Amino acid sequence: MNEFEDLLRYAKHVAEGVNKVIADLVKGDPKDLYEASMHLIKAGGKRLRPLALTLAGRMYGLSESLGIKAGASVEILHNFTLIHDDIMDKDTLRRGVPTVHTVYGTDMAIIAGDLLFAKAFEALTGLINYSIDPGRIVSATKELSWAAVTVAEGQALDMSFERKVDVSVDDYITMVFKKTAALFKSSLVIGALIAGAPEDEIEKLTEYGSDIGIAFQIRDDILGLVGDEKVLGKPVFSDLREGKKTILVIYALSRLDDEGRSELLNALGNREASVDELRKAAELIKSTGAVEYADQLAEKYIESGLQALQSTHPVDEEAKEMLRKLALYITQRKY
Amino acid sequence: MNEFEDLLRYAKHVAEGVNKVIADLVKGDPKDLYEASMHLIKAGGKRLRPLALTLAGRMYGLSESLGIKAGASVEILHNFTLIHDDIMDKDTLRRGVPTVHTVYGTDMAIIAGDLLFAKAFEALTGLINYSIDPGRIVSATKELSWAAVTVAEGQALDMSFERKVDVSVDDYITMVFKKTAALFKSSLVIGALIAGAPEDEIEKLTEYGSDIGIAFQIRDDILGLVGDEKVLGKPVFSDLREGKKTILVIYALSRLDDEGRSELLNALGNREASVDELRKAAELIKSTGAVEYADQLAEKYIESGLQALQSTHPVDEEAKEMLRKLALYITQRKY
Repeated sequence: MNEFEDLLRYAKHVAEGVNKVIADLVKGDPKDLYEASMHLIKAGGKRLRPLALTLAGRMYGLSESLGIKAGASVEILHNFTLIHDDIMDKDTLRRGVPTVHTVYGTDMAIIAGDLLFAKAFEALTGLINYSIDPGRIVSATKELSWAAVTVAEGQALDMSFERKVDVSVDDYITMVFKKTAALFKSSLVIGALIAGAPEDEIEKLTEYGSDIGIAFQIRDDILGLVGDEKVLGKPVFSDLREGKKTILVIYALSRLDDEGRSELLNALGNREASVDELRKAAELIKSTGAVEYADQLAEKYIESGLQALQSTHPVDEEAKEMLRKLALYITQRKY
Repeated sequence: MNEFEDLLRYAKHVAEGVNKVIADLVKGDPKDLYEASMHLIKAGGKRLRPLALTLAGRMYGLSESLGIKAGASVEILHNFTLIHDDIMDKDTLRRGVPTVHTVYGTDMAIIAGDLLFAKAFEALTGLINYSIDPGRIVSATKELSWAAVTVAEGQALDMSFERKVDVSVDDYITMVFKKTAALFKSSLVIGALIAGAPEDEIEKLTEYGSDIGIAFQIRDDILGLVGDEKVLGKPVFSDLREGKKTILVIYALSRLDDEGRSELLNALGNREASVDELRKAAELIKSTGAVEYADQLAEKYIESGLQALQSTHPVDEEAKEMLRKLALYITQRKY
């Protein structure tokens, strides 16, 4: 039996609910705009952010169905960021399908992202129709704004790092906290806020979400180097081709001699580089022990995140246990 | 004495307040992202949407200072839409300065727009710090989401019309309602909602805002054909060059004979067209009486909007009178 079987069964159940809420919310005229907006959402995805939101809400007494309704907001916001990121990164493949701007053109992809952005806020403020304390909805919407601001800052940092040679590990952690961890953290916080959780519990979930989000991105960096295209749903080495300062690249640059450094820097961000050249760059990175370093760093964040989760006092222990498993699952750690 | 002198004095006062609120809200790291986000905002603008919001709020008892704080949200949202629109329309000049993507590049302009989008919601939800009923804040935030959704739909429609020959006057009205009038209407509604205005009063402001917003866009179309570059802050004939289906073009196409129609259609959206060719196209449009037609149409909407405003029952008559003048001012109608 797969150790994540029960988690994945519940994730599927939540995803089905979230998909219905989104399909109901993201429809209208003009048709092509709504098609473009739903393109990536329909291509799949595990809806892990709504799952995290629903579980955090359940921990403090929120019903699953309200969690799912609120969860649509973070999933929609996530998809908006992916559409705009793909434009900027010139990515052509995502979740195994052509990206929105590849199919509908850049202009339509910009608007489709903007539409989803607005719909994310519509999803949250629409909760006013279900006897939820309005003060909690405002707090949750404020948190969603914070996440959107922070993700934009993270995306700008990520871009600026592509042109910067001396990115430190601290810079990297700040960037991935903003770009990746913030929305995961906010998903948990929004669930807890709507449930009316006490402030100190929300702080613990904030720590759990931040740490696990960072660990997730570190693992993602590793996968981008050693993973295979079919599992990733996008071309391998695309991080290298785009000149991304992944944790592996940062570590390797700090360890290589001058010759190795310039070899790696020459391959990085070179969109004309052949797969063979990229493979050589990847081998160079691995030779420094970067993968092992990154693995240990991820491990440190997972430990810290799980400890924060452990210290919570929820009313629903089953939800807490599923969040523990979720952390292990998304960071791909063995039990 | 200028008939709008008192209105413009008050507008300046509100604008100064709004500028301070925005400067406080839109700052942070990374520096270049925040610079890009503030570029267009700093270039000026009369802040007429926050003015409308503040006046609508005052009509139902909201303090001016809270109106100004809330007003920042619609101004920020407006600037977000301009930044993304300029990317799509490939416009190089706005408010007399180079557009954001011209200065900072398209990628940064996309993120700058996204950041402002998020900040608009931060501005509204931040009202929770000032003894305002949370239920009103949720309603206002819901209205802002609606406006953002609707503007995105309007922008998509506007783009699709560029490639469409047979755009009717009804299609046009739907498009400009969404693209231009919706946010003006929502500015008024948000002010009134935060003030706690009764529903039937909000309906009247909705009608006023929709009608005046549509009239404003019709006048803007006219100015784009007969105005001069210095006043517009952008090149004349840019609507023609971009192939925009303005009300003038729609009317002219319905009146011209086959020869005239194809001459006009050949010039429309032709980015290689010389100023002389564009001038000829403009003359062709004027020869159909399109300017007079558009003027009368605008007049109809102004009348209807003013009537709706007239039927309101505010606690602050001065604010109502200023909204009447604002309608005349933005639609450039003589007293």
